[in-house]
Amino acid sequence: MTAPADAHLRETGLGGQTLLSGGFLEVRRDIVRLPDGATASREYIRHPGAVAVIPILDLAADPTLVLVRQHRYPIDRVLLEWPAGKRDAGEPTIACAQRELLEETGYTATEWAWAGWIHNAAAYSSEGIALWFARGLLPGPARPDAGEFVEAVTLPLSALAALDARGELTDVKTLIGLHWLQAALSGHRSWSWTSAGNARDVA
Amino acid sequence: MTAPADAHLRETGLGGQTLLSGGFLEVRRDIVRLPDGATASREYIRHPGAVAVIPILDLAADPTLVLVRQHRYPIDRVLLEWPAGKRDAGEPTIACAQRELLEETGYTATEWAWAGWIHNAAAYSSEGIALWFARGLLPGPARPDAGEFVEAVTLPLSALAALDARGELTDVKTLIGLHWLQAALSGHRSWSWTSAGNARDVA
Repeated sequence: MTAPADAHLRETGLGGQTLLSGGFLEVRRDIVRLPDGATASREYIRHPGAVAVIPILDLAADPTLVLVRQHRYPIDRVLLEWPAGKRDAGEPTIACAQRELLEETGYTATEWAWAGWIHNAAAYSSEGIALWFARGLLPGPARPDAGEFVEAVTLPLSALAALDARGELTDVKTLIGLHWLQAALSGHRSWSWTSAGNARDVA
Repeated sequence: MTAPADAHLRETGLGGQTLLSGGFLEVRRDIVRLPDGATASREYIRHPGAVAVIPILDLAADPTLVLVRQHRYPIDRVLLEWPAGKRDAGEPTIACAQRELLEETGYTATEWAWAGWIHNAAAYSSEGIALWFARGLLPGPARPDAGEFVEAVTLPLSALAALDARGELTDVKTLIGLHWLQAALSGHRSWSWTSAGNARDVA
């Protein structure tokens, strides 16, 4: 993504320190050399990355989707979101996707299709979120983490699109997953389905 | 967004402390009461919010758009993004949108239309990003902040959509703004234009 031609934009890390660590968030402050040779400091969250799953319950004309409702304390709102979660260190995104879908909704999926990477807070977090489509869903009991209160809900694509049109869907991974799903269903975005055992991370 | 019916999901703040402050990031750790009565801690960034602008240079069949390229140190990539920036304390989003468009691209816009709110990292940041459409663009010199290296670029909507289809557009506000623009242009999302002086924040 950063070609040699981008030397006029590029910031080069010169080392730094960990400002906060040990709890949930790891915060770094690095010194960077700016394109004009001056230096500046950059504070950011070191994040292991996350995964979100777009679970398609049926492939009717108006497919039924599985989402979760979760209170997000930093914004004090209940958000409607795709099942999602943070990656364990070194965990492939497909393994994280299968784990989070099971934990939060109880479903396992027989087929998976890669959707894409998104960067949600690149100004101050290294987080990237990998999005996967899932279908061929088999129900089972959810297995929430201790202290995690998540409610699985099903709703038709048309209802989710109506929430988006009214400005009531605000979670970024959920908006982008919805738009990519609409594009794939209308033939404007390609997707390639693989059996659960053969699904692999995109390099 | 949080109805009384959501008591089974809601976390209630019981106070907390500031873990980090004074630099770029403010980090809080709060104790919360969980829906089952247990307590847990939540660490998160206190963020003033941000704004992104979707600047439409002409309303041709394939409109030309103004974006910026910027190196994002936390992910070490140059991202293609809408002009955007953090709100000053108490700053209306429309004022921030007009300021950031001018600073990063040199353009002023004669007409504005509200696009929507998005939450980009609700698990660990209070940030909300307000998106505005802008048209009737008048060129002028960009006024970057000291230490800010941003390159303004113009490209047609079709080229941005092609980057999205190939998985090369990863910034969340940029993806969502693109999708909302496509929806508005095809009549699937309403927008309402106001002159620059009359544009007001949505409550």
